Amino acid sequence: MKDKVMVQAKPLNAFCVQVFEKLDVPKADAITTADVLVEADLRGIDSHGVARLRRYVKGLQDGVMLSHPKEVTVSETATTALIDAGAGLGQPVSRRAMELSIRKAEKYGVGLVTVRNSNHYGIAGYYAMMALERGMIGMSMTNADVLVVPTFGRNAVLGTNPIAVAVPAGKERPFVLDMATSTVPRGKLEVYDRQRKEMPLGWATDEKGIPTTDAHQVLQNFAARRGGGLLPLGGAGEVFSGHKGYGLGLLVDIFSAVLPGAAYADTVYPRTADGKPLPANLGHFFGAIKVEAFRSVSEFKSTMDELIRRLKNSPKAEGEDRIYIHGEKEYEEAERRSREGIPLDAPVEADLRTIARELNIAYGL
Amino acid sequence: MKDKVMVQAKPLNAFCVQVFEKLDVPKADAITTADVLVEADLRGIDSHGVARLRRYVKGLQDGVMLSHPKEVTVSETATTALIDAGAGLGQPVSRRAMELSIRKAEKYGVGLVTVRNSNHYGIAGYYAMMALERGMIGMSMTNADVLVVPTFGRNAVLGTNPIAVAVPAGKERPFVLDMATSTVPRGKLEVYDRQRKEMPLGWATDEKGIPTTDAHQVLQNFAARRGGGLLPLGGAGEVFSGHKGYGLGLLVDIFSAVLPGAAYADTVYPRTADGKPLPANLGHFFGAIKVEAFRSVSEFKSTMDELIRRLKNSPKAEGEDRIYIHGEKEYEEAERRSREGIPLDAPVEADLRTIARELNIAYGL
Repeated sequence: MKDKVMVQAKPLNAFCVQVFEKLDVPKADAITTADVLVEADLRGIDSHGVARLRRYVKGLQDGVMLSHPKEVTVSETATTALIDAGAGLGQPVSRRAMELSIRKAEKYGVGLVTVRNSNHYGIAGYYAMMALERGMIGMSMTNADVLVVPTFGRNAVLGTNPIAVAVPAGKERPFVLDMATSTVPRGKLEVYDRQRKEMPLGWATDEKGIPTTDAHQVLQNFAARRGGGLLPLGGAGEVFSGHKGYGLGLLVDIFSAVLPGAAYADTVYPRTADGKPLPANLGHFFGAIKVEAFRSVSEFKSTMDELIRRLKNSPKAEGEDRIYIHGEKEYEEAERRSREGIPLDAPVEADLRTIARELNIAYGL
Repeated sequence: MKDKVMVQAKPLNAFCVQVFEKLDVPKADAITTADVLVEADLRGIDSHGVARLRRYVKGLQDGVMLSHPKEVTVSETATTALIDAGAGLGQPVSRRAMELSIRKAEKYGVGLVTVRNSNHYGIAGYYAMMALERGMIGMSMTNADVLVVPTFGRNAVLGTNPIAVAVPAGKERPFVLDMATSTVPRGKLEVYDRQRKEMPLGWATDEKGIPTTDAHQVLQNFAARRGGGLLPLGGAGEVFSGHKGYGLGLLVDIFSAVLPGAAYADTVYPRTADGKPLPANLGHFFGAIKVEAFRSVSEFKSTMDELIRRLKNSPKAEGEDRIYIHGEKEYEEAERRSREGIPLDAPVEADLRTIARELNIAYGL
């Protein structure tokens, strides 16, 4: 069996749309959700692409993600809104929330929209990037499954809680920061586990809260809820300022969960007394800032170009030949994969076939 | 000579006011600037307290900081404003900018104010915290003197570019994240240099852009502009995600410098052809978000309390006995120092005496 199977974005997208429609998701929402997933695969963020399709299928089948949620705007002002997603898929409500932020920013300079009672929304950057073509700065944050240990703590209490900010440039590519607030994602540990390699000390802790190089042990501890977890950006303790990464993760929980009144910290993904999963009740935060409210978009974009070039053209460290701007690698990967196809891990591709069979959908990727 | 000299906050504050007034700063601005400085000393952020008084004195005397700047509102909408500080002190204009953000948020849910042509504004957290008593989330960012090396770069191109966010809680203390986006500040290297200790690998790089434990060398390289500098949060390269800290630093430059049109990256603190310093042209970003626009402040504060307790009460790593919330250490230090006094480094206190003598001010601390 080959390690990778090459598939093209367009049929992959169409397949995902079919899957969601088969699970009774309205066409427009199916299209949005498929688009967010395949965009992750195109940009090289494989952990958030169709590798997750099974989880959405299962969520819809189990009824913890609803295909026809009652989505309600709970409160709204000229510049803000709070939406209850009604336990629907995270992607469609998030797209609508970001569109609403952009409309508010268009009129009032800035728009902030929070969402509660939602589900996993895919890549944070997708929504932030929606602001780019409007000459706006876009922001997106979400809380997430509990994996990250606070500084000096033993157990995971926070999610990998990503922050995404997208800023338009002129001739240069936009700045797109899309970062988990942990040092590395869980997927990185899985890679080290599969390769039976020791991981660097400072990525994760064992069940006593002590940094470890044993990825397998950390993953086993996750499964058994024995304690330990991923370390925040900056690592263990305060020597390399792990408390800053912890602070950023906590900040994301406040903006995306406390502000809309979603589940926060380790209260996400609740279960019934007998262990049955309930809707995740995740929260998201979206923001759009209209550049024109401060200075002309063309001036702003020229300055962005100058700043980007200044960084990229500055001297390189010994042994290095390139300084990157955030988003640059992903733009290049998306261009390559649009051309050459998306290399799916063989087990991921095999699971797509299984899903097709289970749902009785033609599979022609 | 003793290492530390204990002084009380109130007379220290009054002394600073006198110093600024003697340098022709209007009384209200002198009071604000003194307050920001002494607040840093109270909170234990000694590097940003009266240890910097000399730099402000020199800046005012050299005319690169103006006592009577022409402060102009360049553009304004209901929710946004851009202020040109006219090369005045950073603190008074920043206080006014944050007050304006709060007034806008009071009316419209959110207020964002940027400032250009400004100077060092002290601790970022001061302005963010102004929002707390109004039931708002406060934000503050600034670009700063060039010290931080981008990932894979050899030379410092960015400042330590801090981000501060303050969030009100109920019975618990507010969350106050106030963090430089470098792993550590320059002051930390100075401490290691004075004690002739090796610093941890991952704080700073040598003139080739290679991580080093030699704090003395890094500081010498700064002085001689030989290359190298502080590493972003996450350290060198991408193994511990130093590119995320670099991204956060760049983000701060975009929000606080590109958005208002201030000097960005390493164009701050410009000089004439013959090396004479010109006004720094730093930029700042301030934001206020009205919690009430999303949900009731009392509900929000109760949830903040629950989140804070959940984190603090979670099990501790082996050998640790406490999990902190951001701002907690500083609140405790401020209470202690308000009671017991501020322990100034002897050379700092000696310099205050010198300033008093030079300006012909009575010194009675």
